Amino acid sequence: MMTIKKKYLVSPGPTPVPESVLAEAARPLIHHRTPEFSDALMEVMRGLQYVFGTKNNVFLLTSSGTGAMEAAVVNTLCARDEVLVINGGKFGNRWTEICREYHITTHEVTLQWGQDYPKEKLRQELSLNSNIKAVFSTLSETSTGAVYDIKGYGELLKQKEILHIVDGISGLGAMPCQMDDWNIDVLIGGSQKVFMVPPGLSYIAFSPKAWTFTQKSSLPKYYFNAQKAQQSLGKKTTPYSPAISLILQQRKALEVIREIGLEKLIKHHSVLGRACRAGVKELSLKLIAENPGNALTAVQVPSGINGLKLLDIMHHKHNVYIAGSQAPHKGEFFRISHLGYMSRFDMIIALSALEMSLSEMGYEFELGEPIKAAEKILKEDL
Amino acid sequence: MMTIKKKYLVSPGPTPVPESVLAEAARPLIHHRTPEFSDALMEVMRGLQYVFGTKNNVFLLTSSGTGAMEAAVVNTLCARDEVLVINGGKFGNRWTEICREYHITTHEVTLQWGQDYPKEKLRQELSLNSNIKAVFSTLSETSTGAVYDIKGYGELLKQKEILHIVDGISGLGAMPCQMDDWNIDVLIGGSQKVFMVPPGLSYIAFSPKAWTFTQKSSLPKYYFNAQKAQQSLGKKTTPYSPAISLILQQRKALEVIREIGLEKLIKHHSVLGRACRAGVKELSLKLIAENPGNALTAVQVPSGINGLKLLDIMHHKHNVYIAGSQAPHKGEFFRISHLGYMSRFDMIIALSALEMSLSEMGYEFELGEPIKAAEKILKEDL
Repeated sequence: MMTIKKKYLVSPGPTPVPESVLAEAARPLIHHRTPEFSDALMEVMRGLQYVFGTKNNVFLLTSSGTGAMEAAVVNTLCARDEVLVINGGKFGNRWTEICREYHITTHEVTLQWGQDYPKEKLRQELSLNSNIKAVFSTLSETSTGAVYDIKGYGELLKQKEILHIVDGISGLGAMPCQMDDWNIDVLIGGSQKVFMVPPGLSYIAFSPKAWTFTQKSSLPKYYFNAQKAQQSLGKKTTPYSPAISLILQQRKALEVIREIGLEKLIKHHSVLGRACRAGVKELSLKLIAENPGNALTAVQVPSGINGLKLLDIMHHKHNVYIAGSQAPHKGEFFRISHLGYMSRFDMIIALSALEMSLSEMGYEFELGEPIKAAEKILKEDL
Repeated sequence: MMTIKKKYLVSPGPTPVPESVLAEAARPLIHHRTPEFSDALMEVMRGLQYVFGTKNNVFLLTSSGTGAMEAAVVNTLCARDEVLVINGGKFGNRWTEICREYHITTHEVTLQWGQDYPKEKLRQELSLNSNIKAVFSTLSETSTGAVYDIKGYGELLKQKEILHIVDGISGLGAMPCQMDDWNIDVLIGGSQKVFMVPPGLSYIAFSPKAWTFTQKSSLPKYYFNAQKAQQSLGKKTTPYSPAISLILQQRKALEVIREIGLEKLIKHHSVLGRACRAGVKELSLKLIAENPGNALTAVQVPSGINGLKLLDIMHHKHNVYIAGSQAPHKGEFFRISHLGYMSRFDMIIALSALEMSLSEMGYEFELGEPIKAAEKILKEDL
């Protein structure tokens, strides 16, 4: 080692894990068929219900978030059902891919990356086809930082026999999202986002309306079978060996979240997001999202700057791990996260590393001004 | 707490995790799209190849072992294919359940729990049906402790256009199993067994013959798609956010395994298994498995003793967590594990707790004799 290299994780997943949550994983393992584990599982479920804003059971799956997305599809639909996917980026596109793999007739609203999709457009779209069984959307599209009017979509779908299925993976806990009040029928989360735990767990809840679909669903499923998970939860357990250590970590992290309180946690994310965008604006850089959210900020690489080289400097010279952009937009933008266990100084670090990197690459701006703009807003974070 | 309660985990999954492996999970999280993580992933893959006895890629799935079992089915077969399942217990039965969920025509050899199934019987069975596309078997049936002649089955299937699909979850590393030499086409493992890591990861490898089936397989799959995993592995990564902390723990645990060496590790398991059975024999108790293996020993509860009460005393009075028997045989037998990070003294503890519990329940035997019988064999463990 040539110098002291402290590493900073400022990516939208995995997000940093609090020290107390890391330490939890170092305790000796307990068995999952014990009252001790059952108590932990139920406590985690109640914590997840709090963040989801729901009275429905929230199931813990040992899988990436993608597993929970597949679970949403295979438990509610049948082959040749017609569905509508609002595809605003890599993760919206994943809904389409999963549905088509299961021979679901998938109509897609294909947005430009970052483009908004107001409720009115959804109303028009739905008026064109009366066979739609489900609308798939994304609370916060991790590939672009864009957020969508999930509450508005829920109002449209409430009285209809259409399921409202939402990928909340990177938005939950960072911005308002109330499953029950917003008429969401299937909602999904992931441990490595606001939940402050390493990746490996995903979360899924079904509304009473979604359960009626589940009874009719004929798609094949085994590991992701929600009815089996429901039966097991009745016995305070999971159908298969769960990721015990991650679940105990989640219990600890939910203590942290409950101590802060959901409202304050969302406010904190909002402040960090606005501070980040104020810094970026000072650099005269363009945001990718028309309607940017609290979880992350995606920023266009300015012309004349090589985006991959910029990331390389951020990662390997400054040891600040922000995210790049994903295919088919590789190198075109970068993403700074303000999701999960992030303090105001994580924003300062990210912006400072960005200032130094861009400056080094010959991009012209007044050094220190972005930080100054961010600090003005960060003062709001109590 | 009324007294000092040290807890002992002597169950066949999860198995105890070495202290150095627990500590690994307490380190700050790294991002999975980094050279640092790619190096870890490839190192783990090479370690898994060593234990699997294969040159094939071994894929890491973020799921329980059941997820890998489903992956074996959906990646190789088509609906209405005919397959044969050797069902010797709860986990053999799981192969049947998964296959039938995917509308595979599933012929089942239903064994008594613990019953052996010699190679010759498989030969006869196969001679009755020339349409069989795959034979599903279990290296070590965790519900009974029985092991099967996987090497012999492989000899039978070698020259045929039939896949040899083996659940190695609780046997791998505890007893010989060489994927390439034994003609196994799909082999599965799980992190919480001999691999000495908490549950949450499963492992799967495909032979070149299995890959030809994969190209023709038409079953729907997304999260468990092996071809996508193969493409990602070419880029030293995984298709979806992996359970990073568990993978780093697996790297550490594989160091432990490599240091011991596979041959010696298997010998150690063999000694512990024999010592356990010698102790049980001294208690005049009957084994469930005709052909018991090195991973665990399942023992019939003697008449006059309440099996659930026995477990309760073991768990809550002695704090020794052995496993019970699973439905539909609940309460009929118990299972002592000698799998994974177990020392000779874990066997002494398990047998001692068993002696004290049975004695307390009025079962008659010479106290201390089971331990004595075990010690005679444990002396072989170097």
